[in-house]
Amino acid sequence: MLNFDADRFLNIEQGAVALAPAIHDAIGKALGRGAENIFFVGTGGAAILMQPAALLLQRLSDFPAYMEIAAELVTGGHRALGAKSIVVIPSLSGTTKESVATMDYCRAKGATIVSLVGHKATPLGEQAGHAFVNFAEDDTSSESFYLQSLLIALSVMAHRGEYADYDRTIAELNLLPEHLLAAKQAFEPEAERIAERFKDEPYHIITSAGLSWAQAWYYGMCILEEMQWIRTRPVHAADFFHGTLELVEKGVSVVVFKGEDVYRPLTDRVEDFARQYTDKVTVIDTSVFPAPGVSPQTRALVSQVFLATLLERLSAHLEVKRNHPLTHRRYYKKVSY
Amino acid sequence: MLNFDADRFLNIEQGAVALAPAIHDAIGKALGRGAENIFFVGTGGAAILMQPAALLLQRLSDFPAYMEIAAELVTGGHRALGAKSIVVIPSLSGTTKESVATMDYCRAKGATIVSLVGHKATPLGEQAGHAFVNFAEDDTSSESFYLQSLLIALSVMAHRGEYADYDRTIAELNLLPEHLLAAKQAFEPEAERIAERFKDEPYHIITSAGLSWAQAWYYGMCILEEMQWIRTRPVHAADFFHGTLELVEKGVSVVVFKGEDVYRPLTDRVEDFARQYTDKVTVIDTSVFPAPGVSPQTRALVSQVFLATLLERLSAHLEVKRNHPLTHRRYYKKVSY
Repeated sequence: MLNFDADRFLNIEQGAVALAPAIHDAIGKALGRGAENIFFVGTGGAAILMQPAALLLQRLSDFPAYMEIAAELVTGGHRALGAKSIVVIPSLSGTTKESVATMDYCRAKGATIVSLVGHKATPLGEQAGHAFVNFAEDDTSSESFYLQSLLIALSVMAHRGEYADYDRTIAELNLLPEHLLAAKQAFEPEAERIAERFKDEPYHIITSAGLSWAQAWYYGMCILEEMQWIRTRPVHAADFFHGTLELVEKGVSVVVFKGEDVYRPLTDRVEDFARQYTDKVTVIDTSVFPAPGVSPQTRALVSQVFLATLLERLSAHLEVKRNHPLTHRRYYKKVSY
Repeated sequence: MLNFDADRFLNIEQGAVALAPAIHDAIGKALGRGAENIFFVGTGGAAILMQPAALLLQRLSDFPAYMEIAAELVTGGHRALGAKSIVVIPSLSGTTKESVATMDYCRAKGATIVSLVGHKATPLGEQAGHAFVNFAEDDTSSESFYLQSLLIALSVMAHRGEYADYDRTIAELNLLPEHLLAAKQAFEPEAERIAERFKDEPYHIITSAGLSWAQAWYYGMCILEEMQWIRTRPVHAADFFHGTLELVEKGVSVVVFKGEDVYRPLTDRVEDFARQYTDKVTVIDTSVFPAPGVSPQTRALVSQVFLATLLERLSAHLEVKRNHPLTHRRYYKKVSY
């Protein structure tokens, strides 16, 4: 595979899944101390990667779960945030300014801080009540953050008796890194073909639904916009039909990410529409990639992880075909703002 | 003012505010019957217009509040939805397919349905437990829906003893329609100038924060995309710095909506950045429009209403300058999907 280190990838994603027992223990302790709600609070892309876990809890658990943008939480506060709160803060660098400010703000309220970081020797690594460290870089961090936040959500539900299959699901998640690697390998030629089609494309409407919606939002904003300077319109598959559809005509790129949870029909609907009105429809569908030993129930929980892993291959080819390194920035870490 | 009927506008917005006692009564009854949570569930733009009310409750009240996309709720369900739920469903037509399906789904769970409609003789007008009817058309519906959902949120908090200034706030909201009209009149020349600048502009990054963020999202999707077929990128002011900023360069339009709640500094930050790197910065700032008798506290609750009312003037000039009627569609009500 182009510019790819399989061993490094496996180490990182296995490292994420291997945190399950420690996460389960920390969540159990926090619940045992009387935690009454959980906040997922991140900055930019890291915040988006927490969304599937927050959605899962909101829809399947009685435990109140909130997803807040760090800058808004610190600015406006939140009535439910206090000493009975668990606050999950992801930051690969462990140093993101807004995320450190969030930690300080929430610690001052007495909350239990759970940080997800790539490096221990950082403010978020050292000062959180529970710091989970899994080294990753940009090209492997999405899967790692999705998996770690999923482990937190599953643990909350399992401790509360709301998720009976916890042990089986964790066992299946341990198989996932190898399956993700196989999916990358299988997708590589298609990734190159899509990159060839996309290399001069100035604008994409990108959509998905359910747990996979986060990946449409993330890939548009944090990869295509930030790392390739390509205009995107991330729009939820349900919202698509209430505005954005009117932009579709011949020549307009519509990208549909299809996962395997119950919300998949919402993406089918966009695909069916788009195929009628534009010649540029790209569908990335997780369901065609096998994962022996992983049940449909678990696949539905991790479609966003499969999508992230497939799309990393697209990014690898885009940067080469567009002669635009993924690390190239106009502003980030170049000017202050 | 261009293509504008002031009396009609006043009637509609006064009609929205005048629902306060009936809404307060209905919410009081639902709480008295033991309601334990509230869902705001809409489709497309109407859903977005519920977001400020949902956010207010989530951040200021202990009463659990959820904002769900109709199509996702009906597809995947929600653990908190049941006989102890109040479900607020806005639909101007009263007939929106997904919204009617939502009503049926939630009624089957025993929830109390509160519909906000423009016409009584419709499924959502006839079959909801409480139907609030305020005739409006597209150009006046945003303010009406924002106000009605705000009245619901304030009523919940007032009944629960979480909002002491309810009577004063309602009295101030009664002054609002006249102030909105005056703001439109004052903004009219500026609206025309902005429309002149925007008429050939192919793409806008549109941002805001706090309660005003909904209006950036709404105006991008439901007006510029749907009604003018102009590409937009609605992005939260906090997210802007984690991806979308890299698209900014000379010639790229950045539109900043500035409201008056505590989150305003997040929009200041985008404005400061954008002014350094592009020559096309448009700021619409509610704070320059007077509203005698309305306290800063209440103004902070209704910045999104002011923005909607100002932007309607921009839309009115855009359709003329672009020779593209706001009612013109490629697909909506023209083809099935």
